[in-house]
Amino acid sequence: MPRSIPIGFLIYPRVTQLDATGPAQVLSRVPGAEIHMVWKNTDPVETDSGFSILPTIGFDECPPLDVLCVPGGTGQRVLMQDETVLAFLRRQGRQARYVTSVCTGALLLGAAGLLRGSQSACHWAFREELRAFGAEPVAERIVRDGNRITGGGVTAGIDFGLLLAAELAGEDAARSIQLFLEYDPQPPFDSGSPEKAGEKLTAAVRAGFS
Amino acid sequence: MPRSIPIGFLIYPRVTQLDATGPAQVLSRVPGAEIHMVWKNTDPVETDSGFSILPTIGFDECPPLDVLCVPGGTGQRVLMQDETVLAFLRRQGRQARYVTSVCTGALLLGAAGLLRGSQSACHWAFREELRAFGAEPVAERIVRDGNRITGGGVTAGIDFGLLLAAELAGEDAARSIQLFLEYDPQPPFDSGSPEKAGEKLTAAVRAGFS
Repeated sequence: MPRSIPIGFLIYPRVTQLDATGPAQVLSRVPGAEIHMVWKNTDPVETDSGFSILPTIGFDECPPLDVLCVPGGTGQRVLMQDETVLAFLRRQGRQARYVTSVCTGALLLGAAGLLRGSQSACHWAFREELRAFGAEPVAERIVRDGNRITGGGVTAGIDFGLLLAAELAGEDAARSIQLFLEYDPQPPFDSGSPEKAGEKLTAAVRAGFS
Repeated sequence: MPRSIPIGFLIYPRVTQLDATGPAQVLSRVPGAEIHMVWKNTDPVETDSGFSILPTIGFDECPPLDVLCVPGGTGQRVLMQDETVLAFLRRQGRQARYVTSVCTGALLLGAAGLLRGSQSACHWAFREELRAFGAEPVAERIVRDGNRITGGGVTAGIDFGLLLAAELAGEDAARSIQLFLEYDPQPPFDSGSPEKAGEKLTAAVRAGFS
């Protein structure tokens, strides 16, 4: 029996669900992994994609996590000033083996004071905001700084999940998960970064955020 | 106002959640998209990843779908003999503009008689089973045959989602979604297909399925 590895994703109203469901799919196959979707209570949480996820556990019942992961989403702006959420992140962040985020989840880790002095990834359109929290933005898909592992925008969570799977269970296990998930990406277009998408499209997508 | 585009994912106990949540994230950003997670009733559905999704609507209340999408999962073996599920798929499949699947969801479309004579993709380990339903397996990530669009294993759903987004809203819209999702994949390993993973790893992963 592998030892149990509690892995917790913060979920919240208007979370970008793939930020959490992508790495949750990957990490759920790590031997011993126990996936938690954590919120203040266990009422259904409406995601950004038109459906709701049921939290598995509330803040107060959540065990000490080996991996704390904070996904992004438009709903996080409110949370950045929510003392109950920030206190939960600080409490878990103090003892977790890995303190992690996907997309703009890094800003929420930052608001909790968990990225001070750390190099960090974030969604391309929001990366510079990390500086307000004493973190150093890095334009890479996954950034590791000590036990902080942060991913770029949304789909970076799958690459992040595989990297973390290798940390937790070894490279062979991670490769097996990759094959199981048939993760041999073939995007039909090549517009996945501002550099590749070009200025016009980037400006249009950026305008949609404000 | 763009016209409304109802897009329905079948969900069910032990669904491979990323098969549905990946393309749902992509397609939720298509102008006018209305995402439905459909099951027999609206009780929470336990996924394969340790958490539950709340169906948005039951079979009987589900409107005629523009896009019917069937994800895979270990739970589908039971459904392949479930007349209530097969009848729902047939009813929606008759009138949907696109009849689609991700991963082993193709086998369930096949069991409903919706892939007879069609070329089809499927998860690499289960592809040959399509023949039993009169479909022709194709070793590609996305296969289009008339209004049937089928994806390979799990993560193929994101590539599939972008292709379908371009069908529904044009290539510019799909490229914008790709940039929003920062879908510029950089897998940390290169084991996403049997050819890349090699015989030993492939045999080990295949053994895990039986």
